[in-house]
Amino acid sequence: MPRSYLDAPRPIAALATPGGRSALAVIRTSGPGTFELLASCFSRPSALLEAPGLSLVHGFFMDGRTGERIDEVLVALFRAPKSPTGEDQAEVSCHGSPVIVRRILSCLHVAGFAPALPGEFSFRAFTQGKSDLVEAEAVAELVDARSEGARGEALRRLEGRLSRRLGEARKALLDLLAEAEVRLDYAEEDGSPSELFPRGKLAALRAELATLAASWRTGRLYAEGAMLALAGRTNAGKSSLFNLLLREDRALVSPEPGTTRDWIEAGVEIGGFPLRLVDTAGLRAGPEGIEARGIERSRALVSEADLVCCLVDSSLGPGAEDEELLALRPDALRIWTKTDLPDSLPCPRGWIPLSTEEGRGLEALHEALATALKGLAGRPPEGGPPDRDEVAIANLRQKELLERAVEALDAVLGVLDASSPAGVGELLDAAALELRVAAEALGELTGEIVSAEVLETIFAGFCLGK
Amino acid sequence: MPRSYLDAPRPIAALATPGGRSALAVIRTSGPGTFELLASCFSRPSALLEAPGLSLVHGFFMDGRTGERIDEVLVALFRAPKSPTGEDQAEVSCHGSPVIVRRILSCLHVAGFAPALPGEFSFRAFTQGKSDLVEAEAVAELVDARSEGARGEALRRLEGRLSRRLGEARKALLDLLAEAEVRLDYAEEDGSPSELFPRGKLAALRAELATLAASWRTGRLYAEGAMLALAGRTNAGKSSLFNLLLREDRALVSPEPGTTRDWIEAGVEIGGFPLRLVDTAGLRAGPEGIEARGIERSRALVSEADLVCCLVDSSLGPGAEDEELLALRPDALRIWTKTDLPDSLPCPRGWIPLSTEEGRGLEALHEALATALKGLAGRPPEGGPPDRDEVAIANLRQKELLERAVEALDAVLGVLDASSPAGVGELLDAAALELRVAAEALGELTGEIVSAEVLETIFAGFCLGK
Repeated sequence: MPRSYLDAPRPIAALATPGGRSALAVIRTSGPGTFELLASCFSRPSALLEAPGLSLVHGFFMDGRTGERIDEVLVALFRAPKSPTGEDQAEVSCHGSPVIVRRILSCLHVAGFAPALPGEFSFRAFTQGKSDLVEAEAVAELVDARSEGARGEALRRLEGRLSRRLGEARKALLDLLAEAEVRLDYAEEDGSPSELFPRGKLAALRAELATLAASWRTGRLYAEGAMLALAGRTNAGKSSLFNLLLREDRALVSPEPGTTRDWIEAGVEIGGFPLRLVDTAGLRAGPEGIEARGIERSRALVSEADLVCCLVDSSLGPGAEDEELLALRPDALRIWTKTDLPDSLPCPRGWIPLSTEEGRGLEALHEALATALKGLAGRPPEGGPPDRDEVAIANLRQKELLERAVEALDAVLGVLDASSPAGVGELLDAAALELRVAAEALGELTGEIVSAEVLETIFAGFCLGK
Repeated sequence: MPRSYLDAPRPIAALATPGGRSALAVIRTSGPGTFELLASCFSRPSALLEAPGLSLVHGFFMDGRTGERIDEVLVALFRAPKSPTGEDQAEVSCHGSPVIVRRILSCLHVAGFAPALPGEFSFRAFTQGKSDLVEAEAVAELVDARSEGARGEALRRLEGRLSRRLGEARKALLDLLAEAEVRLDYAEEDGSPSELFPRGKLAALRAELATLAASWRTGRLYAEGAMLALAGRTNAGKSSLFNLLLREDRALVSPEPGTTRDWIEAGVEIGGFPLRLVDTAGLRAGPEGIEARGIERSRALVSEADLVCCLVDSSLGPGAEDEELLALRPDALRIWTKTDLPDSLPCPRGWIPLSTEEGRGLEALHEALATALKGLAGRPPEGGPPDRDEVAIANLRQKELLERAVEALDAVLGVLDASSPAGVGELLDAAALELRVAAEALGELTGEIVSAEVLETIFAGFCLGK
């Protein structure tokens, strides 16, 4: 039978660094008996067993059966509960050869370590109370971060800022619920329910949770990026701008080995947001055949893109195709290109003048793109440095639970406002029921109340060694 | 001007784990001022500055200019000289996102760390006397190891076994040289040079160095692997054997992410040697056109392969094409296939009976291949467990220097044996000159005497972060 996250904890091991050749690779182990089992594969067993927590021990990793030396390693020791998982934990740092990693993992398996399931180290940190569910998810989101913005948001969640706000909201809900239940017991029949419930407090809670739910747009944009389509007639300067944006960004998006087909390689980062650049085929009136199909694809890209730049050659001015494009996407950024040409027409109001040849106008374009992205993310465009206490969610599970809590609070508010013929006791009952739904949704969010199946689904989506 | 390995040592930093997403990434730093500079980017600077060597400090990596938190990290500290490089050294273990790694490296650069050159950590370990040149090269060879055999050989070199033997040989040479020089000073004109020199000692030294030089064949075979061509007529069972060898080996050569085009993926490991399997087009007499070209290619493969298996369908027996193949490669292993067929002919002497259908004969084939590989590697085929003290070299530089030393010793022995009319003083002079050449070759091998240019060339071939 396959092992499950919920089995009694046994020692586990997994490679925590990417595969491939490099100076170092790190193999992570955790669980009861970790040090004893590891010592059976180590050239200095007593040094390892006697080492204090948070220390490093140098020696040779050995095949426990034959005594053959496999590699010169450093072992980092963490003694429970002062470890990332809360259990006894060790990290073996060896030379970064797949042959060595394979051999060490196989020796660890023979010694008694089970291969870790994806996310099992994070799962143990959760069950050992080292992190709540939102923080555990933030670790996976940090690893997946594809832009500075996504990294910053995930780190704020990892630091517990979202958890604290959710905890406070849940506590407030539970306090209200307790109050409602006391009143129910005394069955006060005088006064209307709206007098019995602090309506303002409820509404404020609802607003806060609704804001958090809406921050999903921001979080998702940070995490997944926006598509920017460069559109316009043939020869309007789309490819020059494309190359310019990519080239100047190269320092930021240095190539990542092993992720060749990753969109980041064809993407740029503006204002902390990842942006996927798409160069479209030039628009031309009335072509047929293959070219028409290319143009049809361009129209589709322009329709579905999050942001569109409409480029017009300043020596020609806008044509019918540009009018059509702007009718399709009135929100497009208007770019007046090739302003270095001698017969360049003056730049109309609301257009951004650009000369890729002379590199002029690029800063204004950057600013306009950053503003548009902030707008897309549901953030005030005036910007300024991001509020350090601001948190956004990036995860559909969290969004759905927050929305469930908001709906329940809407129902409570509805009950309070209703001039229904029902008695106050009945109304209090209905309100208490909805409050309980909202409190449970927040409890499930942070993992205080959560089913085993939900947990398994969440952690199985993590990467191995995490 | 680009930085050089030989500049005054300054603090350096580099990613030491492969690129890509994973649970962990490790960034390595080394050099004077490492701890102070790192503390300027760390949430708990005094904890870091006060921590003892070989300990771990938990905290947040920060942008030193803005104070922005970048990631939750663990810092492993090594205080000079108890560190891999012999300098003050630290390893920052962060979440394995390329965005985080990029940002941390950029903050370290701003703080004052230079991006490390490839191999610069190993170079510093060498200049700080933590390893000699042979051991430094062994680290790079460990990372490159593509088979268990290559790993074991490289580790033995890293442990200093080769260095010790070379050191002893060099010391013996220098002793002989000192003796020769004393005799030269006293210009003893009586007796022949062969009496003045311990000929037996010289010959033994020469034999030992020649054995080491020849071990290059073994080391190279371990490191680069051998090509095994499966040949025979169409439908002789080549592809079945190919798939069977690959399939049963899958557990050993688990896929390595990021090395999709690596030969190891299409290779197997037999007796610790990596083996590249090549399935050839079936041989048939007299075809023309495209098929003829395929067969021509098969013949070329059969000629150049290190090992060849000639497969013959046991229900048909050898044909003219097989005779031709065996004439081309009389050393080919002869495989009598499909022994499960009812009309299978009895297996001739010297052939290995095989039924891929029933999985019979595979063990004997494995053994025969392992024996053939040991023969190729210049090792006695009787085998047994490898001698733990045995060392092989895998590196052309080392082979050439050893051969230079052997040639010089041959010249000394030639001088001793010469019944030349020259005086004993002259002969001693000539012998001393050659002894000096041999001793210098060994000194260059371990790096005791080596030019800056040679050093730069050697370390520049290492991977980054090593």
